[in-house]
Amino acid sequence: MKIGTVTGSVWSSRKAPCLMGQTFLVVSTTEGDMVAADQVGAGTGDRVLLVTGTVASRFCMEAPVDAAVVAILDPEKN
Amino acid sequence: MKIGTVTGSVWSSRKAPCLMGQTFLVVSTTEGDMVAADQVGAGTGDRVLLVTGTVASRFCMEAPVDAAVVAILDPEKN
Amino acid sequence: MKIGTVTGSVWSSRKAPCLMGQTFLVVSTTEGDMVAADQVGAGTGDRVLLVTGTVASRFCMEAPVDAAVVAILDPEKN
Amino acid sequence: MKIGTVTGSVWSSRKAPCLMGQTFLVVSTTEGDMVAADQVGAGTGDRVLLVTGTVASRFCMEAPVDAAVVAILDPEKN
Amino acid sequence: MKIGTVTGSVWSSRKAPCLMGQTFLVVSTTEGDMVAADQVGAGTGDRVLLVTGTVASRFCMEAPVDAAVVAILDPEKN
Repeated sequence: MKIGTVTGSVWSSRKAPCLMGQTFLVVSTTEGDMVAADQVGAGTGDRVLLVTGTVASRFCMEAPVDAAVVAILDPEKN
Repeated sequence: MKIGTVTGSVWSSRKAPCLMGQTFLVVSTTEGDMVAADQVGAGTGDRVLLVTGTVASRFCMEAPVDAAVVAILDPEKN
Repeated sequence: MKIGTVTGSVWSSRKAPCLMGQTFLVVSTTEGDMVAADQVGAGTGDRVLLVTGTVASRFCMEAPVDAAVVAILDPEKN
Repeated sequence: MKIGTVTGSVWSSRKAPCLMGQTFLVVSTTEGDMVAADQVGAGTGDRVLLVTGTVASRFCMEAPVDAAVVAILDPEKN
Repeated sequence: MKIGTVTGSVWSSRKAPCLMGQTFLVVSTTEGDMVAADQVGAGTGDRVLLVTGTVASRFCMEAPVDAAVVAILDPEKN
């Protein structure tokens, strides 16, 4: 998993039907920006844990996503 | 997922039979150019959301593709 | 697999339910830091073997993780 | 998918039994050289479309390959 | 697949039970060192073909490995 910081979200009116209802966050990592499906209610500024690849898809109930935010790191402990 | 900009498409007369009927777009990203199967009717100049890896294949009905354009970003909001 | 050195762990109170009970280690590799589920009881300073991708998930009993520490290297032999 | 140019092939007498009968091409891409199983009869100098990861394996009838040449680009159109 | 050169092996007494009996080679590639399960009896100095990702796991009878040495290149032909 990667650690990143949420910097915003992306909006799309024209998307694949199976993506409806998903919130997509822009997450800044040391390897560049990624777009990830939010699974924990993260917001801008939160440091988060990102899971990537096929497991993100399974986690998101088989939606065709390849990255998901699965945890928000505790600010005081990390 | 990655954000990229469609810069064109690729043409091939000699391809694996299971790829027939797919449109392949060239998408420029910060990590370089990728070729992705179009799922949303994107065109040159559109900023798009790219899904990569096995999930792209499943999304494209099990075709052997490893990247797919799954959303067009709203120009005014992103 | 990759070789890395454990440099710490991450804490999160707000995480996906299926991640409860997992210990997440920060592992430094030549490609940067990664966060991986601990499967062998590794601690800070240990040189470890990291498995990444879908196989890490299967190894961790289908939890949505994409990296796991699966071995501690013998200090005297490596 | 990635675009690359075939620069040669690799030969191996000592290989895993399930790889027998496959032709392995060296393909030069902007990310470096890759070795890919040929699915379309490509030759040195051809510009080709490469699929990587698990989908390449499925495409090659479950052989343990992680890259496959799946199309030859039309020289006059790309 | 990637081409690399075997530079040694790694030893671990404390590893996940399912990894017992596997030999892990250190393979030097243009992208850095990787650790891969040996499937063909390769030794230090051999130029080899590496398969990575989930297919390596399947190839190794579902062991949680993400890289495997699947062929030794013929020295005189490559």
